[in-house]
Amino acid sequence: MEVTNRYTVIKHHINGAPEESDFELKPETLTLSIEPGKKEMIVKNLYISMDPFQINRMKDRSSSYEPIKYSGSLIPGEAIYGPGVGKVVVSDNPEFKKDDIVSGYLSWGEYTRTKPEYQLTKVDTMGLPLSYHSGVLGVSGFTAYAGFFDVCKPKKGEKVFVSSASGSVGNLVGQYAKLFGCYVVGCAGSKAKVDLLKEKLGFDEAFNYKEETDLKSALKRYFPDGIDMYFDNVGGKMLEAAIENMNTFGRVAVCGVISEYTNQDKRAGPSMVDVVYRRLTIRGFLIPDHMHIYNDFFSTTVNYLKNGKIQVLEDISHGVESIPSAFVSLFRGSNVGKKMVQIADD
Amino acid sequence: MEVTNRYTVIKHHINGAPEESDFELKPETLTLSIEPGKKEMIVKNLYISMDPFQINRMKDRSSSYEPIKYSGSLIPGEAIYGPGVGKVVVSDNPEFKKDDIVSGYLSWGEYTRTKPEYQLTKVDTMGLPLSYHSGVLGVSGFTAYAGFFDVCKPKKGEKVFVSSASGSVGNLVGQYAKLFGCYVVGCAGSKAKVDLLKEKLGFDEAFNYKEETDLKSALKRYFPDGIDMYFDNVGGKMLEAAIENMNTFGRVAVCGVISEYTNQDKRAGPSMVDVVYRRLTIRGFLIPDHMHIYNDFFSTTVNYLKNGKIQVLEDISHGVESIPSAFVSLFRGSNVGKKMVQIADD
Repeated sequence: MEVTNRYTVIKHHINGAPEESDFELKPETLTLSIEPGKKEMIVKNLYISMDPFQINRMKDRSSSYEPIKYSGSLIPGEAIYGPGVGKVVVSDNPEFKKDDIVSGYLSWGEYTRTKPEYQLTKVDTMGLPLSYHSGVLGVSGFTAYAGFFDVCKPKKGEKVFVSSASGSVGNLVGQYAKLFGCYVVGCAGSKAKVDLLKEKLGFDEAFNYKEETDLKSALKRYFPDGIDMYFDNVGGKMLEAAIENMNTFGRVAVCGVISEYTNQDKRAGPSMVDVVYRRLTIRGFLIPDHMHIYNDFFSTTVNYLKNGKIQVLEDISHGVESIPSAFVSLFRGSNVGKKMVQIADD
Repeated sequence: MEVTNRYTVIKHHINGAPEESDFELKPETLTLSIEPGKKEMIVKNLYISMDPFQINRMKDRSSSYEPIKYSGSLIPGEAIYGPGVGKVVVSDNPEFKKDDIVSGYLSWGEYTRTKPEYQLTKVDTMGLPLSYHSGVLGVSGFTAYAGFFDVCKPKKGEKVFVSSASGSVGNLVGQYAKLFGCYVVGCAGSKAKVDLLKEKLGFDEAFNYKEETDLKSALKRYFPDGIDMYFDNVGGKMLEAAIENMNTFGRVAVCGVISEYTNQDKRAGPSMVDVVYRRLTIRGFLIPDHMHIYNDFFSTTVNYLKNGKIQVLEDISHGVESIPSAFVSLFRGSNVGKKMVQIADD
């Protein structure tokens, strides 16, 4: 049996902010059968996660990011891979059978032809929506959990600031921090997002950074006693302002630097004098280094979800042709919560 | 008995690089006797340590640095205190008697009238020169030891970069790192200093940063396999260049930021993208937080000194009137090793 598999590629390397016109959809004819002996599979993609870090792979020089296979620099015209959830259509891999739900690196297309080294894992949905396995129970959730618990090492009652707080990772950091017993303030880029953080997600406070002319004073207002932990998704001026408001022994977990991704000149110039005198730690992290707490993350988060303790914010586009606009939206701040593309119903 | 005690003050707050004319010597008549009951002492100052951090106390706004008593903002016309070694002249404190050698915060003058809360400690010279207790066995030595061992957490064979490598702290970081089994490269600001690092102190390599037009390429040349630890004494462009050359899981111990002390606009703009992707940790530190390894530091260093394993680099000026020029020299890079002022022979 043959199908048409449409998949997304970049037409050329992208150095600034991405535009929809940088992408195109390529069709290929895919035979739904596997030559035996190589443990390959064909997976029908269901949900594809949209993540800002992918922009770094689209640049015209090799990124230094190579910790996860298939995540080096992208070649124009070739398939893009990213986290996602799919269903096995054909399997020559004894670990998987037809109709198994799997998660891992899938193509930004309708089908993925997988090799054993892709390290897909079988998903037990546990009665939760499939999309959760591409968001709150996937890379975004684990990034929030690992960054908050393993990098920041919080104590109850500490004061936490989260930027991009309505984004896929930030909203969960704030929710984990509240559940843990911290005071949490988030910033976001619109009144609707700010309302959502305070009213739906239980943040203690939230503010619209676009309405603040002086970020340092804004943070001083929300943290009169200083910030103990800053979960940084953006870098730039916000990082500078946070550093100047941090308490002694404050920790900054740097998860992403969206301001630098599309404009290298937008680097933060944090006060290193404050870093020394307040003995601050600024630490970049990636989740493959935190697998020792993966089981904790998964069971804790499943429990929270089943008990309604965590609100799931998803922003889902539909159809493979919506991948470019979905990805571009991440850099325009128009997503709310986890941005993903549902490729097929099942 | 009465003596004239001359002590150094700032005439006014200092916001840029310090000049000798910013200081003056004030005389006072000091009676060498103590009113009983307050546990006070009079100490004759022998060696006074010159430390760049003092400039931050001379600025016209309160520094955030308050971990050590008597180290808040300075008031023009009032005595300056800093680390030093002296000899007890008169004591009403039962823990000390006349002629005891003590170390701790002393005034930048000929005598210090001490109160119990100054927390002076009695010095057992152990046959080593007194000046060592104001340098290699004092704040500078402990800063190097704590920063290298407790902040950087080195592994044998790792690659270490030290800026201000001929300075009081940097030269010792390099020597500790070599003794521990690391590859060590230092930078300094003159050919004479570079020669000293390579020929006398045993650094694997050293370079004159003033001769490099592109610090990033310079570091790439000396660290073709990348930097594992950067002991940062300067901040600014050197920090940026080091970050871009660091290996995965690299650590930056920030001990001082001399480039920022006298010019706030000279902030580093390190690539936070590198911080994330290489999972770097940038950590500021101050020695009061590392007292748990003080005994290790002291016994290890005394052993090294007695066995000739550590070269002691001292740059000693003489007489209380030389304090301004000695202090100012720190910001001109004209000192080699530990800058201190010998106030009296004994």
